[in-house]
Amino acid sequence: MTASRVSGLSPYIPGEQPGKGTGKKYIKLNANENPWPPSPGTVEALRTADPELMSLYPDPDSGRLREAIAGMLNRYGGVLSGERTAGFPEITPEMLFCGNGSDEILSFIFYGFFEGPRPLVLPSLTYSFYPVYAGYYNIPLRRVPLRSDFTLDIEVMLNGDSCGMIFANPNAPTGIGISRDSIRDILDRWPRDRAVVIDEAYVDFGGETVLPLLGEYENLIVVRTFSKSMAFAGMRLGYAVASPGTIRTLVTVKNSFNHFPVDSICQRAAAAACGDSEYYRGTCGAIISERDRFSASLREAGWRVLPSQTNFVLAEHPRLSGAEVYRKLKEAGILVRHFDIPGISNFVRISIGTGDQMKKLLGAVNNLVLNGGGIPPQYE
Amino acid sequence: MTASRVSGLSPYIPGEQPGKGTGKKYIKLNANENPWPPSPGTVEALRTADPELMSLYPDPDSGRLREAIAGMLNRYGGVLSGERTAGFPEITPEMLFCGNGSDEILSFIFYGFFEGPRPLVLPSLTYSFYPVYAGYYNIPLRRVPLRSDFTLDIEVMLNGDSCGMIFANPNAPTGIGISRDSIRDILDRWPRDRAVVIDEAYVDFGGETVLPLLGEYENLIVVRTFSKSMAFAGMRLGYAVASPGTIRTLVTVKNSFNHFPVDSICQRAAAAACGDSEYYRGTCGAIISERDRFSASLREAGWRVLPSQTNFVLAEHPRLSGAEVYRKLKEAGILVRHFDIPGISNFVRISIGTGDQMKKLLGAVNNLVLNGGGIPPQYE
Repeated sequence: MTASRVSGLSPYIPGEQPGKGTGKKYIKLNANENPWPPSPGTVEALRTADPELMSLYPDPDSGRLREAIAGMLNRYGGVLSGERTAGFPEITPEMLFCGNGSDEILSFIFYGFFEGPRPLVLPSLTYSFYPVYAGYYNIPLRRVPLRSDFTLDIEVMLNGDSCGMIFANPNAPTGIGISRDSIRDILDRWPRDRAVVIDEAYVDFGGETVLPLLGEYENLIVVRTFSKSMAFAGMRLGYAVASPGTIRTLVTVKNSFNHFPVDSICQRAAAAACGDSEYYRGTCGAIISERDRFSASLREAGWRVLPSQTNFVLAEHPRLSGAEVYRKLKEAGILVRHFDIPGISNFVRISIGTGDQMKKLLGAVNNLVLNGGGIPPQYE
Repeated sequence: MTASRVSGLSPYIPGEQPGKGTGKKYIKLNANENPWPPSPGTVEALRTADPELMSLYPDPDSGRLREAIAGMLNRYGGVLSGERTAGFPEITPEMLFCGNGSDEILSFIFYGFFEGPRPLVLPSLTYSFYPVYAGYYNIPLRRVPLRSDFTLDIEVMLNGDSCGMIFANPNAPTGIGISRDSIRDILDRWPRDRAVVIDEAYVDFGGETVLPLLGEYENLIVVRTFSKSMAFAGMRLGYAVASPGTIRTLVTVKNSFNHFPVDSICQRAAAAACGDSEYYRGTCGAIISERDRFSASLREAGWRVLPSQTNFVLAEHPRLSGAEVYRKLKEAGILVRHFDIPGISNFVRISIGTGDQMKKLLGAVNNLVLNGGGIPPQYE
């Protein structure tokens, strides 16, 4: 009795969830989760929530939460690790849309703004869900391979008639970002009536945001998540930032086929998190430092590490295959992510954990690869 | 830059959310919310949640929650207000699928099991989201009018070649339920390779569940929500109960295009709620008693009240229009729901609140309608 649509589906395989039934406790560096806990104020908001928030339907518009997000974005110029400069435009709640994780928001965007017969253009290597949503809505794709240094091939992406463009910046799983000026250049050379969607899931870890361009380019849509820099992966919250008109379209799409809003407890805790943004600024800074220290250590041990502006690194050893590194680390009690995808099958993606976790990983890496190389000096 | 799909959308209008900016405090009987708070154990589960539940990704399969739901269903024979009898089959976690509200689950079911060119058959008056999802997936519809007493016209529904069938039982917004034997009769006369979906959102308020039929009919899918009887509307949680094979298809659909799981805090609190099911059994009983008392009072005041097995009643006054009743009650500080839909435009839907809330409503109703009729004796 299954519909024929189902036979064509290829389910997404998320990062392993360790410890289910096995009893084994892993160091989990495979899902780009934040190793730091939510801020004290965020936890307190959960603990003190009015039980009525559970029993009554949520605010469908996440009104207070959008105000809190706007406040946070305006405080630091749109990036937790950044500084607000004179040119940063005021982000208002009317420019914000909240959803159950950025995945839901991406789904609404694909539905609302991308449409064949012209293809959607995107890099061949980027967040794996974009092609999934395109398939879901029958949007044809033009997938442009990355250049040999794993950066976007913007010239080729711009070359051709497309219904829209999407990529993550910084990109995943490479970790490599491009500048705001590069994206401005894209927008200047792109039809004003077709959406350009920039997924800034990882921007708080040192990327450059395009939020300052929103006032100039009505067709620009920025997607964000609370899962990474806000240590909120368990709560499912994402948001879009765009022109008020674009946001109204997203609201129409949401209310037309999928009207379940962000749950009330999530709205409350997330608003508290925005109020505690200094805390998250601190933890982002710690993750950035740890990433750079860890990357340097891996490189000294002979690895190739792509330059990351995210909370993970994509790294490759000259002699061991990605599958082998993944398997040996798992044996050593550490989970990283291996993608069996052409071009990066020799790499592993390592989420940045705490200093202690990364020290253990380096110890395991050196033991496995160098037969007893030990811990590098900067971790002693 | 908006896709042409958007122009055909007609956004759902949810029940008003009072008090946003107006400062006015309404008695809110317009969204079928539960007037009772969540159980003490449910609130405690929220208060004592490990912060790591917020920062790490959720269990994608809601494993512990499914175990807890199975336990609750088996305890009382599938209905909180019921009793388990000898014939009730064991519901296992493999027969359960959890989603972000029953709306999400309905979306997955429509995608996975309904497909043109044969139409999906459903009553013309039932949950308003079924036609929305059908439109979303291009599934043609055959909408069968209710009979003059607002019951389903099963003979006409069975008459014709359809790709599937769906309705709410008890139905909404009529509140009228049909028996398990009637649904068994439908299933016996229906092709075994086409899904029959029974939405039991309101079953805990005195309806008859078809869960005991699951073992006999592989094509039966039951949809449930925590929003009503479990006082959990703010948390967005629903579930499906079906054969393990059907559940696996739903998992495939979910993982293929919409992999965000139920959030961790919701999973934890809901599992605690299942463990407190005696509490919810009590509050359901209180709502049922209040509904029956309130319905009797309205009838004595000259209203027509459809016989409800839900936590709301659909009621009509012989002289006042539904729009007028709605407006006058709103002026009196009480929100009910009016549907501008042929056949029920003269009715209002009134959610069952606490005894105190219903007493105030009756007072307002009698004042408005009967010019000072006062509170009926059973409320004094």
